[in-house]
Amino acid sequence: MQIDILTLFPEMFEGVLGASIVGKAAQKGIVSFRVINFREFSDNKHGQVDDMPYGGGGGMVLKPEPIFRAVESLTGSLEEGAEHSVGGKPRVILLCPQGKRYNQAMAEELAEEKHLIFICGHYEGYDERIREHLVTDEISIGDYVLTGGELPAMVIIDSVVRLQEGALGNAQSAVADSYSMGLLEHPHYTRPAEFRGWRVPDVLLSGHHENIERWRLKESLRRTLMRRPDLLETIEMTPKIKKLLEEIKREL
Amino acid sequence: MQIDILTLFPEMFEGVLGASIVGKAAQKGIVSFRVINFREFSDNKHGQVDDMPYGGGGGMVLKPEPIFRAVESLTGSLEEGAEHSVGGKPRVILLCPQGKRYNQAMAEELAEEKHLIFICGHYEGYDERIREHLVTDEISIGDYVLTGGELPAMVIIDSVVRLQEGALGNAQSAVADSYSMGLLEHPHYTRPAEFRGWRVPDVLLSGHHENIERWRLKESLRRTLMRRPDLLETIEMTPKIKKLLEEIKREL
Repeated sequence: MQIDILTLFPEMFEGVLGASIVGKAAQKGIVSFRVINFREFSDNKHGQVDDMPYGGGGGMVLKPEPIFRAVESLTGSLEEGAEHSVGGKPRVILLCPQGKRYNQAMAEELAEEKHLIFICGHYEGYDERIREHLVTDEISIGDYVLTGGELPAMVIIDSVVRLQEGALGNAQSAVADSYSMGLLEHPHYTRPAEFRGWRVPDVLLSGHHENIERWRLKESLRRTLMRRPDLLETIEMTPKIKKLLEEIKREL
Repeated sequence: MQIDILTLFPEMFEGVLGASIVGKAAQKGIVSFRVINFREFSDNKHGQVDDMPYGGGGGMVLKPEPIFRAVESLTGSLEEGAEHSVGGKPRVILLCPQGKRYNQAMAEELAEEKHLIFICGHYEGYDERIREHLVTDEISIGDYVLTGGELPAMVIIDSVVRLQEGALGNAQSAVADSYSMGLLEHPHYTRPAEFRGWRVPDVLLSGHHENIERWRLKESLRRTLMRRPDLLETIEMTPKIKKLLEEIKREL
């Protein structure tokens, strides 16, 4: 998988793309990164990439040329529909508050692609022609205001890279599996069995596997009911789950 | 504002905390960062900070001691309710998928605090006693699976720091203001007026301020209606907005 990032702040990516699971995936050759400062594609001797908005008002707007030219340097001309060397057309992703809200289904979809290009604007706006004629996806990672698209790009990259085959070791995969049922995770405990007077629940020390499984499922359900009841509508209501939910509601 | 980060991957933060508006806020003394590797607080000569879960199963669980000790090194003993030097009790924030969904209202609330401590686990689980007895807030930035809490911590820090007085310059503030009405932004255009045959809408070149304002409001409404109709329920329905929405619906 080829991942390219267009940004005016390439130094923001160094620590993140080199560390942890994303960094290891790059070392293993599962993913390859290029971080490009699109200021290099300015046609202006001062390296200008933004300008004042037509129609007046405050703020600056990112000009179309440098971003078009930067993307085309990575893909050949998109207008002529040329195939990119790593296969097929890349997804060109713009990070912006107006974008589609990111979720795990989108992570799984993007994880199937061969080539992703992220355009990270900062506090500036984007010239609309970038959205209309260059970008394939506009994505927002949540309803909060950030200073730029760099952190959202890192978030999406992290979520996509960890889904690549071979990116996660066994230890991590096991934890990831606990999300697969669609419930929030049950509480975890490790040593010591007593810490500052706070003890681990007896059932977890009992060695009775059936009781442990029952406790974990019940606590997952309890946490989901308290914090994210919407998730309960998406799971299969087996008789076991129904019974545990009734128990939990009686205990409230 | 004091912001402390507990992580096993301190190198991930270097580029982000030093760059752009967050980095400038630190240079100006608006915010001060400490990034602490909580492995230093292991009581184990191998620096072990996680262990197998009680009750069996895969994955590893972060032990309570190193994280309690790391937080207490920053705050004095939380148990005795000691005031921290920078004033009041810190917010101790755990990044996890089970947390409350982050949004702009939470950013504004956290921006009022004097001291934030972020606990960034990685793919491991957290011993439940950390959640119960140390943490004040559990936060999730969205419904997607990430390899750790580091990127969510950076996202929250960015959203909180930009709200500090003096953190944003004038150019950025102006753009930020465009969110204040609760609508998505209208399209922006800058030079050139024609780029590869794609022209800027005539109205923006007209110099007719009233028409420009009307066009911008209408395009904001159009984009909000198409992409985030839920936001329309939160704004005040003035006669002007009602009329524009009717026009937009007729044009569909």
